[in-house]
Amino acid sequence: MLQKSPLKQFQKLFKTQHKKRPAHKVGLPPAALVFTGDKKQEEVYINLIGYDELEFFQERVTLDQLRKHLEQKKKVVWIDVIGLHDIALLEEIGQLFGIHKLTLEDILDVDQRPKMEVFQEYLFATLKMIQCPSPESPIQEEQVSFLMEKEILITFQEKEGDVFQFVRDRLQDPKRAIRHRGTDYLLYALLDAVIDNYFSVMENIGLRIENLESQAMLEPGNETLQTLYLQRREMMDLRRSVYPLREVIGSFDKYAEHRISAEVRPFIRDLYENTIQVIETMEVFRDMSSGVVDLYMNSLSNRMNNVMKVLTIISTIFIPLSFVAGVYGMNFENMPELQFKNGYFFVLGGMGLAALGMLFYFRSKKWL
Amino acid sequence: MLQKSPLKQFQKLFKTQHKKRPAHKVGLPPAALVFTGDKKQEEVYINLIGYDELEFFQERVTLDQLRKHLEQKKKVVWIDVIGLHDIALLEEIGQLFGIHKLTLEDILDVDQRPKMEVFQEYLFATLKMIQCPSPESPIQEEQVSFLMEKEILITFQEKEGDVFQFVRDRLQDPKRAIRHRGTDYLLYALLDAVIDNYFSVMENIGLRIENLESQAMLEPGNETLQTLYLQRREMMDLRRSVYPLREVIGSFDKYAEHRISAEVRPFIRDLYENTIQVIETMEVFRDMSSGVVDLYMNSLSNRMNNVMKVLTIISTIFIPLSFVAGVYGMNFENMPELQFKNGYFFVLGGMGLAALGMLFYFRSKKWL
Amino acid sequence: MLQKSPLKQFQKLFKTQHKKRPAHKVGLPPAALVFTGDKKQEEVYINLIGYDELEFFQERVTLDQLRKHLEQKKKVVWIDVIGLHDIALLEEIGQLFGIHKLTLEDILDVDQRPKMEVFQEYLFATLKMIQCPSPESPIQEEQVSFLMEKEILITFQEKEGDVFQFVRDRLQDPKRAIRHRGTDYLLYALLDAVIDNYFSVMENIGLRIENLESQAMLEPGNETLQTLYLQRREMMDLRRSVYPLREVIGSFDKYAEHRISAEVRPFIRDLYENTIQVIETMEVFRDMSSGVVDLYMNSLSNRMNNVMKVLTIISTIFIPLSFVAGVYGMNFENMPELQFKNGYFFVLGGMGLAALGMLFYFRSKKWL
Amino acid sequence: MLQKSPLKQFQKLFKTQHKKRPAHKVGLPPAALVFTGDKKQEEVYINLIGYDELEFFQERVTLDQLRKHLEQKKKVVWIDVIGLHDIALLEEIGQLFGIHKLTLEDILDVDQRPKMEVFQEYLFATLKMIQCPSPESPIQEEQVSFLMEKEILITFQEKEGDVFQFVRDRLQDPKRAIRHRGTDYLLYALLDAVIDNYFSVMENIGLRIENLESQAMLEPGNETLQTLYLQRREMMDLRRSVYPLREVIGSFDKYAEHRISAEVRPFIRDLYENTIQVIETMEVFRDMSSGVVDLYMNSLSNRMNNVMKVLTIISTIFIPLSFVAGVYGMNFENMPELQFKNGYFFVLGGMGLAALGMLFYFRSKKWL
Amino acid sequence: MLQKSPLKQFQKLFKTQHKKRPAHKVGLPPAALVFTGDKKQEEVYINLIGYDELEFFQERVTLDQLRKHLEQKKKVVWIDVIGLHDIALLEEIGQLFGIHKLTLEDILDVDQRPKMEVFQEYLFATLKMIQCPSPESPIQEEQVSFLMEKEILITFQEKEGDVFQFVRDRLQDPKRAIRHRGTDYLLYALLDAVIDNYFSVMENIGLRIENLESQAMLEPGNETLQTLYLQRREMMDLRRSVYPLREVIGSFDKYAEHRISAEVRPFIRDLYENTIQVIETMEVFRDMSSGVVDLYMNSLSNRMNNVMKVLTIISTIFIPLSFVAGVYGMNFENMPELQFKNGYFFVLGGMGLAALGMLFYFRSKKWL
Repeated sequence: MLQKSPLKQFQKLFKTQHKKRPAHKVGLPPAALVFTGDKKQEEVYINLIGYDELEFFQERVTLDQLRKHLEQKKKVVWIDVIGLHDIALLEEIGQLFGIHKLTLEDILDVDQRPKMEVFQEYLFATLKMIQCPSPESPIQEEQVSFLMEKEILITFQEKEGDVFQFVRDRLQDPKRAIRHRGTDYLLYALLDAVIDNYFSVMENIGLRIENLESQAMLEPGNETLQTLYLQRREMMDLRRSVYPLREVIGSFDKYAEHRISAEVRPFIRDLYENTIQVIETMEVFRDMSSGVVDLYMNSLSNRMNNVMKVLTIISTIFIPLSFVAGVYGMNFENMPELQFKNGYFFVLGGMGLAALGMLFYFRSKKWL
Repeated sequence: MLQKSPLKQFQKLFKTQHKKRPAHKVGLPPAALVFTGDKKQEEVYINLIGYDELEFFQERVTLDQLRKHLEQKKKVVWIDVIGLHDIALLEEIGQLFGIHKLTLEDILDVDQRPKMEVFQEYLFATLKMIQCPSPESPIQEEQVSFLMEKEILITFQEKEGDVFQFVRDRLQDPKRAIRHRGTDYLLYALLDAVIDNYFSVMENIGLRIENLESQAMLEPGNETLQTLYLQRREMMDLRRSVYPLREVIGSFDKYAEHRISAEVRPFIRDLYENTIQVIETMEVFRDMSSGVVDLYMNSLSNRMNNVMKVLTIISTIFIPLSFVAGVYGMNFENMPELQFKNGYFFVLGGMGLAALGMLFYFRSKKWL
Repeated sequence: MLQKSPLKQFQKLFKTQHKKRPAHKVGLPPAALVFTGDKKQEEVYINLIGYDELEFFQERVTLDQLRKHLEQKKKVVWIDVIGLHDIALLEEIGQLFGIHKLTLEDILDVDQRPKMEVFQEYLFATLKMIQCPSPESPIQEEQVSFLMEKEILITFQEKEGDVFQFVRDRLQDPKRAIRHRGTDYLLYALLDAVIDNYFSVMENIGLRIENLESQAMLEPGNETLQTLYLQRREMMDLRRSVYPLREVIGSFDKYAEHRISAEVRPFIRDLYENTIQVIETMEVFRDMSSGVVDLYMNSLSNRMNNVMKVLTIISTIFIPLSFVAGVYGMNFENMPELQFKNGYFFVLGGMGLAALGMLFYFRSKKWL
Repeated sequence: MLQKSPLKQFQKLFKTQHKKRPAHKVGLPPAALVFTGDKKQEEVYINLIGYDELEFFQERVTLDQLRKHLEQKKKVVWIDVIGLHDIALLEEIGQLFGIHKLTLEDILDVDQRPKMEVFQEYLFATLKMIQCPSPESPIQEEQVSFLMEKEILITFQEKEGDVFQFVRDRLQDPKRAIRHRGTDYLLYALLDAVIDNYFSVMENIGLRIENLESQAMLEPGNETLQTLYLQRREMMDLRRSVYPLREVIGSFDKYAEHRISAEVRPFIRDLYENTIQVIETMEVFRDMSSGVVDLYMNSLSNRMNNVMKVLTIISTIFIPLSFVAGVYGMNFENMPELQFKNGYFFVLGGMGLAALGMLFYFRSKKWL
Repeated sequence: MLQKSPLKQFQKLFKTQHKKRPAHKVGLPPAALVFTGDKKQEEVYINLIGYDELEFFQERVTLDQLRKHLEQKKKVVWIDVIGLHDIALLEEIGQLFGIHKLTLEDILDVDQRPKMEVFQEYLFATLKMIQCPSPESPIQEEQVSFLMEKEILITFQEKEGDVFQFVRDRLQDPKRAIRHRGTDYLLYALLDAVIDNYFSVMENIGLRIENLESQAMLEPGNETLQTLYLQRREMMDLRRSVYPLREVIGSFDKYAEHRISAEVRPFIRDLYENTIQVIETMEVFRDMSSGVVDLYMNSLSNRMNNVMKVLTIISTIFIPLSFVAGVYGMNFENMPELQFKNGYFFVLGGMGLAALGMLFYFRSKKWL
């Protein structure tokens, strides 16, 4: 009972959240700027953070304020754009920082495959931030894009709420290493926060599979396989966000030599290994899922076997006894046993013994 | 009921459309010009579009008119040949533009695998335009070939009706970027239109699989698996059109450096990513399909289990009771119970209690 | 009925033709010349064709005649050796044309894997010519080897009858392109004839799988799976002939630059694409086959379900009714119902109603 | 019975040992030093071994003593750090030997994937030491890290007890080759001890699979599949420790040329081959496991078949006989057989014959 | 019957021969010389063969005699060491010919993976000689190692009896090519003998699979799957001996240029192709095995279906009839039919008709 409810909840949540959205814009000129996601908040706004070894400031700004701020140069400037549905604003940002139209299109297309591209002016990466607060909640994806120019890092998020709070906190502490390093380290720290979050999601998926596992063993039902099926579909979707990460993070090392300082490179390699670990965990989950399907199928056929055994035992005991009773219910005139004084009791006793014998036979066959 | 009908319709349409055609011309000299498809319209005709930044014209022309038009040079000329069954005409076109015989053969062979080839005089690409207007309609393929010379782009289609209307509309608007660019961008725009269309086809296939999914869960029948089987066969065919696209689009970047301007190359890369996304979606559909087969098999064996349970419950309750009735139907002379005044009622009551006990037992085992 | 017979015929033919032959010569010195096939005709003979732009002759010759003919040089000479079991003759041919002993061994070993090798003096290729005249006939393989020296092409076949007749016909027509080209084009034309034939074989296999498909759906029997099994074994054998072709044909482009003229190379590439298409078709057939196994398994368990349902319906209706009859067959002295005037008819009516109720219940559960 | 108990024990042990630990530290600054394992002993201590051709000493030292010892140089110094939970101590060690912060982090993260890295100052490798003392005990992993500087080899273990005792013994014997060689050979000897241990673990897993195999054949139960499932999960975990070894050991040959002397390199290659053998053994075990699942499924359905046969035999014999008895139990007034003198005995005899006939029929069908 | 016995024999032999040996020496210093196999004969002895174009001698020699013989140089000397358990002797041989300790270790480790290594002084290769004299005998492996120095070829075998007798015979014939060639050709001839033997083993495995196939179709039993399982385990083991051969033989061409003369190289390539053919045959066997499992499963469920059909037919005919008999066995006072003169016979006739009707129904459903 206890284990069933989270799975049921997962199934319900999964179905409400997976409303169909058109998979892609069709019939538009290439590189047309269209936001393919859902509007998730009222206003698009910009959160500006600037810091060097000595100073730090954080402010919610308009585009004009942003322009002013950029004049008083800081060592590192992090422009965090929250919300993507205000296309006009994004186009202005694009013009301000010289962003290629195709890059803007990638930022706006929330179905974009994770990728990393090196342009002459900037380095661009886009990936998915995933959330799965509990084993019974389906995974939710949010696209986040990174655009690193020399002293500026711009991030684009679909909506408020992210996994970067911890980085922001560290930035306020002047003793932290992050305050002494450049945009490349900031980029690394943010990517690290995203990947780290994958681990906690993996943990919740792991718990969910274990719930499914015990349900499959203990109370397999039609619903179990349906949940398993949803679970596998979710994993398929997730794989599309996770597998390209290997290439994305690996590209930093290969193609972004001039953008990433030697100091930060070992950290990127570390990140790369974490990514591989996430991918390997997914592989294990995949194998576990199909193992659970086997378990379930087996539990089911075991149950069936038990049903069949009951039927067989009952039939095998009572059908022959009924036959005997039928024989003595025949109306022949000459049936000498019927006149025996204790014939009835002898027959009853014989039936009882036969039934007992059958039971012993079944026990010896381990059917009971 | 509601969900069944589109699948039934799909099954019916699939069977009518997949009439066998000879898979390949056999016993012909190599490079013999034979149209391997079906004649889908009366006449082969040529649609001519020419434009530069200032002017635009569109006309349906004969071959002679075409020759004249080519003299008054435009920046970009798009010659759209609709219909392939007039081999004489195609040979003339081939001579006019210096097309290799093998290329002509590829254009005419509608079973040609998608490919891209760079010749000294031109760049040639052939791929499939697919259509699937609704989840219940089977996929229909049409071959479309592209041949790009310096200022001329020639396209060859099997029949009227394509996914290029949107491009034609944009061409008429002098403010559009496409008017300021060369044949390479036009080629890209047309390819983009084809690939974009794949997304909407994918969406319909996705819906169909979801229909199958709910049918498999709710009312699995012999027909469900047959539809699933057809669906998978269709996917197999589709894969043959889609998978080579990766290589085709990828080749533009690798081998066509001198044909594709630096300006257009990022767009081609973008196209390449979309292609990969289509391929990945197909992979997901493949996994989903086999998941649906599992669901179906499970629903089926669940139904079987339920049938067996009913049989077992009925048998297990009534066979022992029948035995008791049989016992008191025996004709022994000395059966004291038969003389008891309320013996009959006691036995009836006992039977009732036994039946109730059985029912409770079954309920405790969750068979009811 | 109609569909069953071709499959039965296939099964019968398959079994008679797949007599075991020793898989390989064992215990012989390496490069010993042994013909590993079956002698399929009386005599080994040589068919000689010579031609240039102007002249053409075709003659059945002895080895001595062949020697003489070689003196009067033609542009292209095609020596077609029919039959392989006369090892002495083949050794003489080997000496005459300077063929390496290992090459001769490869020509004689009909279990040789398809391959292509470039020697300093000649280019050697061996592959399988397959035949499958109808969907119900099993595939038959014949090894054919090609040895191309400068102006001479020698082919070695196991027996009379091949797929080259069409090429011979074209050779007689002085207007054909083939008469104006060298041995490399002749080699290409012959290879093209072989590969083209694969397509028609594929078509017959496709028809056979479709027959199996409808049998699996409509009248699945023990025999269906056995035919499927034979079909898959045949495909396994076929794969060993087909898959290496990719490499064989691909090698012409890579390693035979000096042997194949630039003019002929595009044709070879075309051939290569056809080969890939054959391989892809086989992949699709493989998937289809396993799909048919699923269909079959499902049909079978559907039948089983129907059997079970009949049993359950009959049992569930009559076992309770029999119980009631048993109750009123008891011999208790005090059974008031028995004295009721219409008791018998009431009971009969009640039984009828119960049976009807059951039938409605089953209908509502879709068991009827 | 005998075979069941070790598997039960395995199942029990597996469940107690696989308590969930947070899979990864989340929400910490990158490269923060956190020990992700469980504290397995009270104190972290250092075991120091130094030797050259002539001398050997072994001592348990504090960090200060270690510093002193390092001054009196030996040819080879092996510092074995036992326990990882004293982070302060490890940081001091890190400073003393110039260890990169990321390396320290890797040492402390017991979920670290096996890897090998070459830094300018040192060579770092981390892998898992596995233990499986008997077929019924689940596998236990312990992380061990190696850090090789010029004359110093530092190893980090999670807890006391390792597979290195044999190496320590050999080190005390001045005649052994190991005393004449450098740190690279010591590193090799230790790695060899780790890999050798994998073989004995593989042996125990092999025995366990064979136990499962005979259980699956002889007494398949619900528990068998569950143990199989646990076994496969364990294999999945193990694979994550074993598969990267190929790359780790392979890297020594590729990237550590300047660290590994020419003399020692053949030994590393030998080690590499052993690693591949371990991986291949795991592949075989994987196949065996799925073979056992098949065996189990088959045993189960064989049992089911036997149950069904019993039911069928009993029903098929007694249901017709009961019918006959029922016929002669009818109360028609005119049933001439009933008045026959030996009618009853004839009927009984006929029933007996029919039953015997049935039994012979079943025997001929091999159901008995 | 006939087909069953060889499989039973195979099963029995397999079990006796697969006694567990410790999989690997554990806890020994690396490169310690330990023979990991079983002692298979009393004495280790050396068979010496020397020859050039003119002379040939063959002698069983002691180590001292061997030393003397080596002084009188022959063109080719083949030293065949039979037996591996006399480690002292092998060490002496090692010293005499300057064999690296790791090579000696590889020679002695009979679980060594097939491999080929080029040392400065010699070329070393080790592989498995397999034997399977009949379809019912399990495969037996024997390790054989080859060590080729300039004029000397040393082979190491586990026990007497090998596949080289044919080579020895040829060596005695001065007209044979082998007498005119060097050690490289001798090495090739011996390798060829080993690989050729694989073909005859493959043939026996093929026959065994076909036996299993017909058993699975005709008389599937619990034993069939067990034999299949053993068969697959054997194939897994065999794969480990066969698959590395590709690399081993391929290495001769790549890395042993200076050891293998240009003359012999084509033969090695030929050998390589044979190896690939063996591997492909194994792949086919693998597919066939899983096909047989499907066949078996299907036969089984067909049998089950037949059992169920019998049960259903009997039940469906007699349960309704018994009900009718039960009705006329009721004791109601007013049952008019009972007084009809021929009521009994009408009822009997009606029952007979009903039974016939049922039989026709079943026949129409193809259940009979």
